[in-house]
Parts: sequence; C-alpha cells; structure tokens
Amino acid sequence: MEELQVRFEELSVLESDFEDAELELLRKSEALHTPLYKKRAQVISRIPHFWSLVFEQAPTEIDNFIQPSDSRVFAECLDTFEVTRFDLENSPRSFALKFGFSENEWFSDTTLEKKFWFRKTKEWAGLVSEPVKIHWKKGKDLTGGLTDAACKLGEARQKLGNTSTPEARKKEAALPEYKNMAQRNETATEASVSFFGLFAFVSGYRWVSAEESAQVEKEDKEKMEKLKRGEAVDDDDDDDDDDEAEPEQQDYQETEVFPDGDEVVTLIAEDMWPNAIKYYKAAFDEDADGFSGDEDEDLSEIEMDDSGSEGETVDIRALVGKGRTASDAPPAKKQRKA
Amino acid sequence: MEELQVRFEELSVLESDFEDAELELLRKSEALHTPLYKKRAQVISRIPHFWSLVFEQAPTEIDNFIQPSDSRVFAECLDTFEVTRFDLENSPRSFALKFGFSENEWFSDTTLEKKFWFRKTKEWAGLVSEPVKIHWKKGKDLTGGLTDAACKLGEARQKLGNTSTPEARKKEAALPEYKNMAQRNETATEASVSFFGLFAFVSGYRWVSAEESAQVEKEDKEKMEKLKRGEAVDDDDDDDDDDEAEPEQQDYQETEVFPDGDEVVTLIAEDMWPNAIKYYKAAFDEDADGFSGDEDEDLSEIEMDDSGSEGETVDIRALVGKGRTASDAPPAKKQRKA
Repeated sequence: MEELQVRFEELSVLESDFEDAELELLRKSEALHTPLYKKRAQVISRIPHFWSLVFEQAPTEIDNFIQPSDSRVFAECLDTFEVTRFDLENSPRSFALKFGFSENEWFSDTTLEKKFWFRKTKEWAGLVSEPVKIHWKKGKDLTGGLTDAACKLGEARQKLGNTSTPEARKKEAALPEYKNMAQRNETATEASVSFFGLFAFVSGYRWVSAEESAQVEKEDKEKMEKLKRGEAVDDDDDDDDDDEAEPEQQDYQETEVFPDGDEVVTLIAEDMWPNAIKYYKAAFDEDADGFSGDEDEDLSEIEMDDSGSEGETVDIRALVGKGRTASDAPPAKKQRKA
Repeated sequence: MEELQVRFEELSVLESDFEDAELELLRKSEALHTPLYKKRAQVISRIPHFWSLVFEQAPTEIDNFIQPSDSRVFAECLDTFEVTRFDLENSPRSFALKFGFSENEWFSDTTLEKKFWFRKTKEWAGLVSEPVKIHWKKGKDLTGGLTDAACKLGEARQKLGNTSTPEARKKEAALPEYKNMAQRNETATEASVSFFGLFAFVSGYRWVSAEESAQVEKEDKEKMEKLKRGEAVDDDDDDDDDDEAEPEQQDYQETEVFPDGDEVVTLIAEDMWPNAIKYYKAAFDEDADGFSGDEDEDLSEIEMDDSGSEGETVDIRALVGKGRTASDAPPAKKQRKA
C-alpha cells in the first residue's frame, strides 16, 4: 500500500516538473516571437483594416461573440491590436489585450487594455480580470450599461478589501452593486451581448485576488518540496478545515457579463494573435470558410498550404483590389452561428 | 498597386519567419521535456496498466478509435509507449509512436513502431507514413487483413520507385495491390476498424516521397530568399506547368485504411503524450468524463485543478485500491461514441 502511495506522490512531483517546463516554454516562445511581432506590427501598420479582417476570419469560437454592430466598430476604427505577456518571469500565463482606436462615434477612449491574470484557489485555477471602464458616448453604449455596472461592482468589491474567505465574499454578494449587476445580467440575453462586454469580464469562477492566489501558490510549493524530500504531506489540510467545511453557496457567475470570456481570450492570445497573417490572408481566399471552421485540423498543415500556394494561383492584384474595397466599406458580416 | 503587392510579399516573408520560430520552439520543447519523459518512464514502469488507462482516458477524438477489442489488447499486454521526434534538427514535426507489448495471444511482435514524416507537395503539407507489418497470430487479426493488404501495396509502390509525377502515380493506381486494397476498404466499415489499422496509415492526402518533399522544400526556400532580397518571384510557376495543368484524377483515400490517422496521431503526440499523468489520474477520478470530453477547455486550468486538489480530497488509498483492481481485470470500456 505504502509503496503505491509513494508512486502517486512521485507522479505529482513529476507533474509539477512538467508544469514548470510548460511555463519555461511559454517564456522561450515569447522570446522567439517578440521580434517577429514587432516586425509584423511595422508591416501591417500600412495595411488598412488588417485587424478587423483578422477578427472577421478568426475561428468561430471567437467570431461567434462578435456582433454585427461590433464588427462595424472594428471596421471603422480599430487601428492596432496587441497581445502582451506583462509578467513573463513570474506569471507567463497572464496576458493583456490592447486595442487601439481612432476617433469614433461610440466611445472617447483611444486605447482599451484588458489584463488577464492567471490565478489559483484551492479548487480552481484560471484567468481573472478587473472590469475596464469604456467611456461610451451618449446613447452609444453597445453593452446597454453592462460595462458600467461591472465597473461599479468591481470598485465596491475593492473597497471591501480581502475576498479570500467565504465570510468576506458573503459581504460582496450583499452589495447593492452586486444585486444590480445580477439583475442586469438576467435581463440581458447572452446571445446578444456585445463583444465589448468582454471588457467587463471578471472570471469564469469568481474574483480571485493576487493575495489569495499567492497564498495558494506558496502552500502548493511547500507541499511539493516536502514531497520531493520524501516527507509526509498533510493530506487532510487540517489548517483549512474552515474553508473545506463550508462550500461556496454563491454562484458568482450570475454577475459575470461575459461567461466564456476566459476561453475566448485564450483563443485570441494563443491562436488568433500568433496566426494573424494566416487569418488575414484567409479574408482574400474564396475557400476561407472551410479553413477557419475546424479547430481540430492540424494548423501546421494549413499554414503550409498557404505558403505552399504562395505566388502560384493567388492573384495578388485581385487581392489588393479586394483589400481596397474593404477600406471603403466595412467587411460583410458573416451570419452569427449561435 | 505595386506597393501593395510588396506588402503582401512582406507578409509572406514574415509568415515564413513565424514558421521557423515554430520549428525552433518544437526543438526547445523537446529539449525541455526529454529528461522529464525519461523520469516519467522510470516511475510508470512500476505502475501496472499505466498506458492502457491513459488510452482509456484520452480525449474522445482518440478514444473513439479504440474498439473494445483493442482495449482488451492494451489492458492485457501494452507495457510501454513512447513518442519520439527522430529528426528534430531537420524535421521537428516528424515523430514516431513506439508500442511495447508483452507476449500475447494476438501477435508475435513485442515492439510496433510507426513513423510519421512531415512532408510537402505543391498543394499540401502533412504527415505521411509507411504501413507497418503486424505479425498476427492465426485467426487473431483484428484488422481482418487490412494491415497485410496495406503492406503489400506499400511494397509494390516502393518497387515502382518515383511517385512524384501524375504519370508515375497512374501506374500505382493500376497495381493489383492497389485494387485489392481499395476493394477491402470498401467492404470494411470505418466505424469498426481496429485501432491497429493505424499501423496501415499512409496519408490523409496521398503517399509523398522524401525526394518529392525535399524538392518542394528547396523551391519554397529559393522563392522565399528571392522575396527577402526583394527580387521578383515567378508567380506562374512556368517550370511546373505539366503538374499544374493536370489535376490529380485519383482519390488515393480509397486505399487509406485509417483516414483520420494523421489527426489522431497528432493529438496523441501533442496532447496525450505530454499530459499522460493527468489522463492517468483522471482514471481514478469520479468526474473523469467531464474532464476528458471538452477539448476547448483550457488545459492549463485542468492541470492546475489536479495539482491544486492534490492531497486534499483525493483518497490515495482508494485510488490505489482501484489501481489494484485494474491490474487484475482490464478497465471497463466506455461506450463508443460514434
């Protein structure tokens, strides 16, 4: 029995080594790609509508969240777009989306940046984010007040301070801002939420503070080091009995404006961002739909297909012609597949 | 006009830089993971049924191809499993699957190795492979003769030599071994093909020789270097007019025993192999099904969930108990989702 338990512990130690390798690989990937992203930004700064076309051609899992009215905003004023890993050393899974806009009829912001932190609790790990204020022009709020309500809840939650205990979170759920947000969410149907609702995203689970996450990381690390030294670990977590005994009563997703936000932004950061040129080119490809549809398809194959056919059957003048048309009129919106 | 064409060419050059970065990252990933895979192999060599349980818990896209009878073979005699990148320097996308078996009632082989080469044609890029002979014991061939027929076709094709021109391939399609294979395939229903049919896999497109692929790589590289020097490239590919003028008449998929083989083995190499411990642990998890089902889910989250819950609610003795049962009886087969 004991010998088998040791094997399971060995597997856990190995798993944590694999996890470390994954993080190191993310750092190496970023180091390899950063100069390419810079070069790409230079080239595409002279290509009108590059990013709005990329968003149009993005995999359905992203595109499904872009409403026709969002599409119009992108086509008319999305100038720049960037994904950055802002804490590569300590948290390579955290990243930010940064949108640059020209002057427009919808909002006064020229930059909207949304940061996603990779955080942990005892039961969960994933991306959390703080709501970002969009300064909508009068009567132009595409989210119908959802981003504002989320910001107000975010501020009220910050004032409460610590939210790492169930007791503290009970106070959060009793806030008028919480109730307001939950009510607004109930009336807004998910299918029609603007892509800009993403700026209100908080978590696919619940808000997790940096402090709570750091504490969990610390405990995990200590446990792992004990295992590595062959010491016994406290399986029962006696010190946390309070937490364990009281499972969360509240479903914080009732206040989440953009419930699949973490999945959508992960796809944006891990697929759309590195493969943007491919998606852009697909906008000029007759067979584009077959390409953007199937996520299971080996991406390397598709990439190869593209570069393989480069300069053969592709009529660059026709492409350019199309590109020019696109600079006058926003690209036609695909049917939303709900 | 010309300026816009230059932009498209700049994008193509950038794309090829991104492609190089991708290959470099694959090399770095392998360097990071190789010592971990060795350590893992040591630990799991003492855990009975590790790999058969991993295959059981693999994502549905893999598991769907494992028939109940294949499952029995794995549970009874699959001792070792390994994915290697055998040409990391020149072709980091190529890899091999190596299965180690103990003596069994089905075949006399103790090792079955299947190599997949990443190759290119002018129109396509992807994995190709040569059929691998399985020495089935009498009356025990789970593929009903498909692997043998594929090997015979493979040998006959090799005797023909060069298959890079449509003319040469016409000869292939006229072979009696080709017709035999196509006929056998017609009667075998895809849904019931054994997982061992994977050893007969050739290509999701058609057989592509190393020579043909090397020639295409060379031409692609020359074209890219010209673009980088700002020289004009030959958009019409005059030198290849013969190939271009004659589109392939033959559908080589009529002789393919395992049409989705390339996608299945890519998932095995890129997901199941690095995350094997996680899948193994899932076999002891009551909620395993929710975990192995959704491919879109952020894998990092799942991994974290696992390591986060380590030593808390998991009763290692119960796990071990289950593990022991599994060592006596093969794991129960999930319902096949066709």
